Amino acid sequence: MKTILGRELPDYIDGYGEVTPFQGAFRDAGIKTRKAVKLTSVNPSDGKVLDNLEQVFDKLNIKDGMTISFHHHLRNGDHVLNMVVAGLANRGIKDLTVAASSIFPIHEPLVEYMENRVVTGLVANYISGPVAGAISKGKLKKPAIMQTHGGRARAIESGDLHIDVAFIAAPTADTYGNINGVYGHAACGTLGYAISDAEYADKTIAITDNLVPFPACPIQISQVLVDYVVQVESIGDPAGIVSGTTKITKDPVALIIAKRAAEVIKASGLVKDGVSFQTGAGGTSLAVAAELKDIMQREGVVGSFASGGVTGYLVEMLEEGLFKTLFDVQCFDLKAIDSYRNNETHQAMSASMYGNPHTKGAVVNCLDIMILGATEIDTEFNVNVTTGSSGLIMGGSGGHSDTAAGSKLSIVVTNLIKSRVPMIKDEITTMTTPGESIDVVVTERGMAVNPRRVDLIEKLRITNLPLVTIDELKTMAEKITGVPKAVQLLEKIVAVVEYRDGSVIDVVRQVMNTNVWG
Amino acid sequence: MKTILGRELPDYIDGYGEVTPFQGAFRDAGIKTRKAVKLTSVNPSDGKVLDNLEQVFDKLNIKDGMTISFHHHLRNGDHVLNMVVAGLANRGIKDLTVAASSIFPIHEPLVEYMENRVVTGLVANYISGPVAGAISKGKLKKPAIMQTHGGRARAIESGDLHIDVAFIAAPTADTYGNINGVYGHAACGTLGYAISDAEYADKTIAITDNLVPFPACPIQISQVLVDYVVQVESIGDPAGIVSGTTKITKDPVALIIAKRAAEVIKASGLVKDGVSFQTGAGGTSLAVAAELKDIMQREGVVGSFASGGVTGYLVEMLEEGLFKTLFDVQCFDLKAIDSYRNNETHQAMSASMYGNPHTKGAVVNCLDIMILGATEIDTEFNVNVTTGSSGLIMGGSGGHSDTAAGSKLSIVVTNLIKSRVPMIKDEITTMTTPGESIDVVVTERGMAVNPRRVDLIEKLRITNLPLVTIDELKTMAEKITGVPKAVQLLEKIVAVVEYRDGSVIDVVRQVMNTNVWG
Repeated sequence: MKTILGRELPDYIDGYGEVTPFQGAFRDAGIKTRKAVKLTSVNPSDGKVLDNLEQVFDKLNIKDGMTISFHHHLRNGDHVLNMVVAGLANRGIKDLTVAASSIFPIHEPLVEYMENRVVTGLVANYISGPVAGAISKGKLKKPAIMQTHGGRARAIESGDLHIDVAFIAAPTADTYGNINGVYGHAACGTLGYAISDAEYADKTIAITDNLVPFPACPIQISQVLVDYVVQVESIGDPAGIVSGTTKITKDPVALIIAKRAAEVIKASGLVKDGVSFQTGAGGTSLAVAAELKDIMQREGVVGSFASGGVTGYLVEMLEEGLFKTLFDVQCFDLKAIDSYRNNETHQAMSASMYGNPHTKGAVVNCLDIMILGATEIDTEFNVNVTTGSSGLIMGGSGGHSDTAAGSKLSIVVTNLIKSRVPMIKDEITTMTTPGESIDVVVTERGMAVNPRRVDLIEKLRITNLPLVTIDELKTMAEKITGVPKAVQLLEKIVAVVEYRDGSVIDVVRQVMNTNVWG
Repeated sequence: MKTILGRELPDYIDGYGEVTPFQGAFRDAGIKTRKAVKLTSVNPSDGKVLDNLEQVFDKLNIKDGMTISFHHHLRNGDHVLNMVVAGLANRGIKDLTVAASSIFPIHEPLVEYMENRVVTGLVANYISGPVAGAISKGKLKKPAIMQTHGGRARAIESGDLHIDVAFIAAPTADTYGNINGVYGHAACGTLGYAISDAEYADKTIAITDNLVPFPACPIQISQVLVDYVVQVESIGDPAGIVSGTTKITKDPVALIIAKRAAEVIKASGLVKDGVSFQTGAGGTSLAVAAELKDIMQREGVVGSFASGGVTGYLVEMLEEGLFKTLFDVQCFDLKAIDSYRNNETHQAMSASMYGNPHTKGAVVNCLDIMILGATEIDTEFNVNVTTGSSGLIMGGSGGHSDTAAGSKLSIVVTNLIKSRVPMIKDEITTMTTPGESIDVVVTERGMAVNPRRVDLIEKLRITNLPLVTIDELKTMAEKITGVPKAVQLLEKIVAVVEYRDGSVIDVVRQVMNTNVWG
């Protein structure tokens, strides 16, 4: 079986099941189903607060083989995932699947639980740190399933990803289960990645270190979705939750790339009243935002929205009137949290509203300009953000594929060469985002437009921008680095990369060198 | 077949189906299902704005026999229901079921559509005006189904009430279907009754007279739920939407009743920090709120929340710090709309979060004190708010049964005699709310506590309050009015009264005198 991108896939993968190969970014549209949910109704005399996690586990009757879910707004400060898995391990539970929207270095204890088969499955949109390394080395029994932010919401809502118990890390929860992320020691802002879990899990538990009297205000996740509430000492470490002040890069090469990207944006004709924009929180991406800001200010343009994970930089653009609103699925820093708490034009969105392709229209569909990163790009514009060139898992799509598919203009900004490895190759290690949804690759040495975008090529041809083909970019890089050797990998499939519609766009195979970092 | 209250019911009703007789307020709890929903996914290139209602009808392929739904936040100013039904009638559509959360006098055109079989079914929580009269006289082909606010949400979410197309009157909508009720000519505040419709209908249409660029802010109903958006000249008349300033009664008898009710509340011991409270917008109910306010101020009590349809009076209590938050399913006046728009502690709730018994806990479950009205009460404390003593439909449960079931202390406030008819009878015309969920009946001549509430009787016995039995209240009234004759009705069932769990608590039969008002 082959994907439309030519990737060979088995038709059945042990521990995953039957494979639907990727057939195009918008192939799987039409009539879709949000699944039915069974719930236990709560009568007026019933309470919800339990004394400790042990009581929660007793109530839930968690069994071997169940799927438990987590959201990642506490990022590298999250205490909840480790606490719950440790508690279940203590009870002798085996064969759990952990469905976490993302996995961070703090989740290192999972490695041991993978080794002793407490955890045998993992589903996530982004995996970094020791867990990523352990998966790459074949330590997880079943292949990890790597989804996109919108694809995870789709999988949960469709029933493809059945969650037995959702554990919601709740910076604030009241005694009847209403949750917000804006108050409490571990305040993290919006809770966009937790919404589908709360709505579609068989059981939903609020784990909080800030239990308040009924009712919490504001309410981001409603009492009608929450079975039990439990207070613990700490759900997270604020130092790991927020990344502090997000800063624009000072690297001169990255600044050149950002300037070029901004020139492409300008030439596209999209920078006019109502323009919308998303970028990651990386230094180069933020530099593009800064360049766009200059253009918008100079030309008096008022945009409709900026979206995504939100940084203080986007908050400033909102406050300066450059955008009318923000759509925020997760707050990256304290400034974003404060803004979301206090400014009604800083609006939350769920992961489903953000990027689920099987809704009546996600926010990514309304996005004009998207700035993306890459670890590898092939000459068909297919992008890898899942593995490094060594084959090790070091990330994942997150919102990459969702925004690339939805936006009118998706621009990958990257150095032409990183750590002496060329970024553009004939064949990339892992396909994450299909080239049909990538419009431009901007490097410091030149930029290439996807040949599908004849309209954009026309517009850029009349500028002074260094327009080349992607093959020319590849050749430029190879002249400096030589042609890179293909990475050698073992046969074993350690991860399945799902496109946002649930089809399989690629698989990740086990690395040979088990001494690599991770 | 009999309900637990002794009402004889057929086991099958033509045009309704099989009857599940009411067996107790909390009999139907446990594992429940929120139904699956089929939707058509929207790709980035798809637009949602249609030019006019005709285009909407073309897209939807509305057929004979379908169910179309409406919400009632525009109350007696609503233009949308009449506009849609007229449009469908023009296309020759027949046999529609109109599922509106409530029906008002402005919906009089429905009477003609009932007569000519454009509309053959009606589902609503409250029906007043000419439509109520026409149903009572047998003009609707199928029996109307009368639900509660929470019961309607339950029926929609469970699939008992399948909606083919939900038409959402949207005071503001953007071009991608995001809706709010706080801006626009027809601003009505919260949109609590429309949420389940938008979530569970096969198709959801936003009808607006204030189409704004994407994205609307705030968003109360999300783009992910809306198929199409259409702009019309006017969705509603503000004069009919808001009732102006809600005023406390000046009637001295009503004021005595309110004072007595407040004394019961005080004696109950519930007035302490964290107390919660709901009342209707009627003059006597508001007078109870005023009395409670005095007590709370005098005793320095800070309540947790007030809820329900929200009036300016409750807003004042919020602003004066007597409650920490409001839960608002619909705004009754301009002051409530302004407050909801500007004050984050004035929180919206959906009808499901308000009163659906088959969720993980509705807000009514958290309610301490509920002040209720009645058109008739029997000596088992069963209450009729569906029909007048003539047998004519003149209302319906709305939130009556939901709040009575959920609250710790439900008090019916009523004159002992109204229009020379005693309010307390051996047999009431229609059962709406079961006596097991009614705690106290307060009249100007005395108050009766439900014998089930031994605890409350103990507390009231040590006060000076005129405590009598409900039979004594009945006797007092009958001494003045004589024993009222039972109303004579025809056999034909014109409405089925569903309790909040979907069981049938009573039926309404056709009135004999077709000259009565309506």
